[in-house]
Amino acid sequence: MINKIAIVGVGLIGGSLALQCRRKGIAEKIIGVESNVSHAEQAISLHLVDEILSLDEAVETADMIVLTVPMNILVGLLPGILDKVKDQIVMDMGSTKSTLSDAVDNHPHRGRFIATHPMWGTEYSGPSAAVEGAFENKAVILCDTEKSDPDVLAFVKKMYDILNMRILEMNAVDHDLHAAYVSHISHITSFALANTVLEKEREDNAIFEMASAGFESTVRLAKSNPDMWTPILMQNKENVLDVLNEHISQLRKFKSCLEKDNWEYLRELISHANQIRRIIQ
Amino acid sequence: MINKIAIVGVGLIGGSLALQCRRKGIAEKIIGVESNVSHAEQAISLHLVDEILSLDEAVETADMIVLTVPMNILVGLLPGILDKVKDQIVMDMGSTKSTLSDAVDNHPHRGRFIATHPMWGTEYSGPSAAVEGAFENKAVILCDTEKSDPDVLAFVKKMYDILNMRILEMNAVDHDLHAAYVSHISHITSFALANTVLEKEREDNAIFEMASAGFESTVRLAKSNPDMWTPILMQNKENVLDVLNEHISQLRKFKSCLEKDNWEYLRELISHANQIRRIIQ
Repeated sequence: MINKIAIVGVGLIGGSLALQCRRKGIAEKIIGVESNVSHAEQAISLHLVDEILSLDEAVETADMIVLTVPMNILVGLLPGILDKVKDQIVMDMGSTKSTLSDAVDNHPHRGRFIATHPMWGTEYSGPSAAVEGAFENKAVILCDTEKSDPDVLAFVKKMYDILNMRILEMNAVDHDLHAAYVSHISHITSFALANTVLEKEREDNAIFEMASAGFESTVRLAKSNPDMWTPILMQNKENVLDVLNEHISQLRKFKSCLEKDNWEYLRELISHANQIRRIIQ
Repeated sequence: MINKIAIVGVGLIGGSLALQCRRKGIAEKIIGVESNVSHAEQAISLHLVDEILSLDEAVETADMIVLTVPMNILVGLLPGILDKVKDQIVMDMGSTKSTLSDAVDNHPHRGRFIATHPMWGTEYSGPSAAVEGAFENKAVILCDTEKSDPDVLAFVKKMYDILNMRILEMNAVDHDLHAAYVSHISHITSFALANTVLEKEREDNAIFEMASAGFESTVRLAKSNPDMWTPILMQNKENVLDVLNEHISQLRKFKSCLEKDNWEYLRELISHANQIRRIIQ
């Protein structure tokens, strides 16, 4: 489809995209940009990318530049990259969108950029976390698409189509609200649950011998990388706070039922939660 | 190993045990006791059990009686079953132990009973939720084993060994404390997270098109059956309240970081949560 793609940040997302680009023939040559020396070496030795270049070299030579670095770094890099592009396509795959949008909305080359968020990831990070066949059959959000040039939008839609992703379009503000509900709050509950149990473990390390699949399921996101997640929660602070307050108030309903022996209402709360079956199979 | 095993409550746990008993040759004949008529029919048509008998008939004819009904029903049934047993083995597989223990501690046939809790389950229920190969390589807790007759303990250890389970022994009080941390709180966080998101969905039903694997993982336990879970939380009320209070206070730390832009501490909280990697792979 294109000659050269440059992936800036060859970790879980960037590395998994690199694998899919090669498998699906999206680009003939895959360039990595990676400031972490050991990650750069891994990206080559794992055959994720063909070569490692500096950001400036990559921007100059590639037809498409994909940003998959933590959100704070991403927001810092994007305006400078847009300064240098002519007809290249620039895309991000990050988890928050409003701050990023604000950072480039008035940029003269705004049209060369498209903001995207594939709803796929794992709790692992770095090049060794890259997974074959990632993104397939998942949703991807394209944000503020009217601000991207038509050729940019068309190419990126085609690319995600080749990756078998379900494309949804929405503005950056709606994206960040929804992401708080279906992703960011899940991470906070997992982090907090891990800390709750680790606190107890200091007194009593026998408890983990009992850890079940249910526990593992609710706590696995707690393994997620703080370099990725601190900036996400920072940039989506207002939405995350709203959802977190609602979540704490839902937990307090359970607490109140237990304190007051209100078993009928407890049963109702659980039955209501069962309605999540409509949404996840 | 034995001639007849009676499984009282042929649902997720009882049905899965029935499948393993047949596969591993633990009993020649598998009797089901099931008050729900449609579940009883399913238990036969799915070949989980050979026949359905009344509880009294089953207690009279079986060599071993396994109780896998919700905890409130279990606590109600057990003393009456013990009244009738002579040399049969009676075992439960429930999620709480102190209330049950208190209910039979002074029973003249206490020695014929053994309290067990296999750390396996799914969010589904009923006979159709029964799974081939369940329990394998999971932990199982045997409680207050000194109160069971030696032949009862020896048989049940051998049986769980055949199921390839890792046997842990502890008293009922410790069990209930630990179960609150590694199982019961996970269910409450999932129920509350489901209710948080369902509340939002009333205004905005687009949000689930974005639901990711991470969300699904943290919320899947919210599909769990209220008939099972209301009595569990009820019987383990004090421990669950302690853990829930600790969990809410951990969530408040995240809330405070967001409110005060304390990104350094937020990063520390996430890094601390990452230590859960020591416990789950």
